[in-house]
Amino acid sequence: MKASYNRLTEARMRELQALMAHRNFTVDPERLNVYSHDEVSGEKYRFLPDIVLYPETTEQIAEIMKWASKNKIPVTPRGAGTGLSGGAVPVFSGIVLSLERMNRILEFDKETLTITVEPGVVTDEIQKAAKSAGLLYAGDPCSSDASFIGGNVAENAGGNKVIKYGATGRHVMGLEVVLPDGNIVQFGGKRVKDVTGYDFVNLMVGSEGTLGIITKIILRLVPLSKYLVDLLVPFKDVETAIAFVPKMITQAKLLPASIEFMDHASLTLTGRFLNSKLPYADAGAHLIIELEENDKEVLFDEYVRIGEMCLKNGALEVFVADNRNTREKIWKARKAIAEAVSSFYPEFCMEDIVIPINRIPQIMEKVGAISERYQLETINFGHAGDGNIHVTFLNDRYTPEQWEKTVEKALEDLYRETVLLGGTLSGEHGIGLKRKKYLSAVLSPAVLELTRRIKAAFDPTGILNPGKIAD
Amino acid sequence: MKASYNRLTEARMRELQALMAHRNFTVDPERLNVYSHDEVSGEKYRFLPDIVLYPETTEQIAEIMKWASKNKIPVTPRGAGTGLSGGAVPVFSGIVLSLERMNRILEFDKETLTITVEPGVVTDEIQKAAKSAGLLYAGDPCSSDASFIGGNVAENAGGNKVIKYGATGRHVMGLEVVLPDGNIVQFGGKRVKDVTGYDFVNLMVGSEGTLGIITKIILRLVPLSKYLVDLLVPFKDVETAIAFVPKMITQAKLLPASIEFMDHASLTLTGRFLNSKLPYADAGAHLIIELEENDKEVLFDEYVRIGEMCLKNGALEVFVADNRNTREKIWKARKAIAEAVSSFYPEFCMEDIVIPINRIPQIMEKVGAISERYQLETINFGHAGDGNIHVTFLNDRYTPEQWEKTVEKALEDLYRETVLLGGTLSGEHGIGLKRKKYLSAVLSPAVLELTRRIKAAFDPTGILNPGKIAD
Repeated sequence: MKASYNRLTEARMRELQALMAHRNFTVDPERLNVYSHDEVSGEKYRFLPDIVLYPETTEQIAEIMKWASKNKIPVTPRGAGTGLSGGAVPVFSGIVLSLERMNRILEFDKETLTITVEPGVVTDEIQKAAKSAGLLYAGDPCSSDASFIGGNVAENAGGNKVIKYGATGRHVMGLEVVLPDGNIVQFGGKRVKDVTGYDFVNLMVGSEGTLGIITKIILRLVPLSKYLVDLLVPFKDVETAIAFVPKMITQAKLLPASIEFMDHASLTLTGRFLNSKLPYADAGAHLIIELEENDKEVLFDEYVRIGEMCLKNGALEVFVADNRNTREKIWKARKAIAEAVSSFYPEFCMEDIVIPINRIPQIMEKVGAISERYQLETINFGHAGDGNIHVTFLNDRYTPEQWEKTVEKALEDLYRETVLLGGTLSGEHGIGLKRKKYLSAVLSPAVLELTRRIKAAFDPTGILNPGKIAD
Repeated sequence: MKASYNRLTEARMRELQALMAHRNFTVDPERLNVYSHDEVSGEKYRFLPDIVLYPETTEQIAEIMKWASKNKIPVTPRGAGTGLSGGAVPVFSGIVLSLERMNRILEFDKETLTITVEPGVVTDEIQKAAKSAGLLYAGDPCSSDASFIGGNVAENAGGNKVIKYGATGRHVMGLEVVLPDGNIVQFGGKRVKDVTGYDFVNLMVGSEGTLGIITKIILRLVPLSKYLVDLLVPFKDVETAIAFVPKMITQAKLLPASIEFMDHASLTLTGRFLNSKLPYADAGAHLIIELEENDKEVLFDEYVRIGEMCLKNGALEVFVADNRNTREKIWKARKAIAEAVSSFYPEFCMEDIVIPINRIPQIMEKVGAISERYQLETINFGHAGDGNIHVTFLNDRYTPEQWEKTVEKALEDLYRETVLLGGTLSGEHGIGLKRKKYLSAVLSPAVLELTRRIKAAFDPTGILNPGKIAD
């Protein structure tokens, strides 16, 4: 779709501003700059909006969208800006529609085990609200202390509990959405299942703000397990650690809540960033295995059994973290990796490939070869239990021009090898701006054509988050 | 969409038949009759096809669809014909495309815990294959001994394990689909998560054969619990049984695998049909509660605790079925209800409303009032734990014309009350032909318009399963 957009002339700007009560907008250049990028590194992923709007109600968003449709002004919805693929970046300028003021927990319904929230609620808050009632909101992206639930839904965020509970979409029972033409629609509801028409809930999930603006979310909560343990398991090298992951999944006869992976370079980086060390800091790789149970003895039996499996499969040691302090220390290290990367390296490229779990050892071998081929400093970490590895290239030697060219070649190789092994571009970070040009490497022309048609079905004028996925 | 279709002239019929190797088709009137209906009762849900095709490969289906597109001949895909909403009925005649000969398990991949199957595999076979390897295929519709997995996916079949494991769609990782124009596409794959483009897998799930023909399915398997127990719990009346369901879900702090419900009339009917009785056959209602654990003692503690909850909340008794024989007897009674209904009543109307779990007591009250208002013999059973009740009206007194009018009024009332309580038309049986005209009662004009556009995006000529959902 090659849509052409109108400029926000002064007259239009006045009209638009009049729609916003209480001056809920900004055109201050410094503020606009904040909304010109997300957490993706690189000047080419920065685009200044003309105006940022801070609507406070669904009705206000409907008004904005009606007006923007009529005037053909691009609108890019935005959560907390913690995205890792440039999904919230206003490629064609125009309006950035920030959901930060729609940040209320609307209802905590203990009778249906649901929580209904606005899109600007920080994910952590939902986790905490659920926990206070002995329940679990199982969506758990590493960015949960900052990211908004609306962004989690729009990206179908994964995180640390996907093996057992699924990604964000699995917890979404219903959505209120403002369509690009300003129509307000309801998809799903407080219903455990629903086959009344097409599954618009899951179509919205992961659509990266290209189909509609999510204004209300009904989330399902599940019982919280009583006891939790994290095993921190160092291995001498990446190969040994990674070879064990599919083995554990197929042989353990249980679903751990998490199986996370950090190689030595990741651990060193996050250790430097946090100024603290995990045990066996010299090991080639660490796994974090989280187990949950309602019975203390059963949990004990499980972690002894899994621990023995680890030791039989090359683990150097098994540390059992069964109190909150130790567990938090481990997870802090794991969750800080992305921030550590961006604080030490102005230029980096964090990838998000996902492959069948039995192919993780092969892809790690290929990643090693690619890093060597292009002389790229590389760290690897991620959700090994989902087959989702955040291969991350760091620029420690190249000029910006060289870096860009080199990374591009490396990515082509990485994606080719990933696809050959039955994998694909992104497990949780999305396509956004960053992976758009590689989409044709994994989706056939017929699927790309369907993608464009779906986009056009929702957004015939093409004003919503243009320049992404389908464009 | 008001498409006009061409007739299968003799010349066209010859062309079409030439596409089918080994005479994989029938035009025998007696055979055609078998494919003119599914399990929905009523002459108005019967339409004779002109021809039934039995393709054996994806490529053959692609050829058929290319030909049908070009010639504008309606194609209605069909699984085992166990559907309960008329979804596989050829409203505009033309071709019925039966998937019964695409019935192979293609791969059982123990390294990725997936099983890849053709659409014509009977669901039971998949359950058995998984079980033989200590794994669980958690899709479990009551029709599992007859229904095809392709139909389960197309309808997003629910069944008996939805509370804990979700409906069929939750287990689908990837699909091969032939689009209406004959293009063969792949959606998803052996990947635990995937955000590379829109979620076409879940859009296909539950689309009732209106968007594409599913020719291959990758299913996720999970570890099989070691120990299982079923509690059969009689209550003095429906009110007491039903009031307990949301209470148990919110207070038990665990997810049972099943919470099923049968009222006295259902139990009597299935008992007559099977010529066997469950204990407390006089009770007003029975619940079946299935619990699973890997530890025998934990399971014991759980069922004692749940059992005590039952007794405190009005249960007359709690029968513990912990051996295969007793468990099978209970489930046989539960699963035979639909068949019992159709064997004793030539005319009946089996509904599939789904509501927020805390509203089950209210809707049951409304159902009672509606039955009385229209003098309709009614049985109620279903997946109480999902808020999904199969309200079933039985014709024991009306002429066919009276019956039709009476049921129509009753359905209008039932749907209105359901929607008022936050529920919707169908939890697992689908819209099909039966509920099409009620769709506008629950979906807004904007959502109906989106539905039509999605249909047109996949099927611009409107030849695939016309007269359903979007038409």
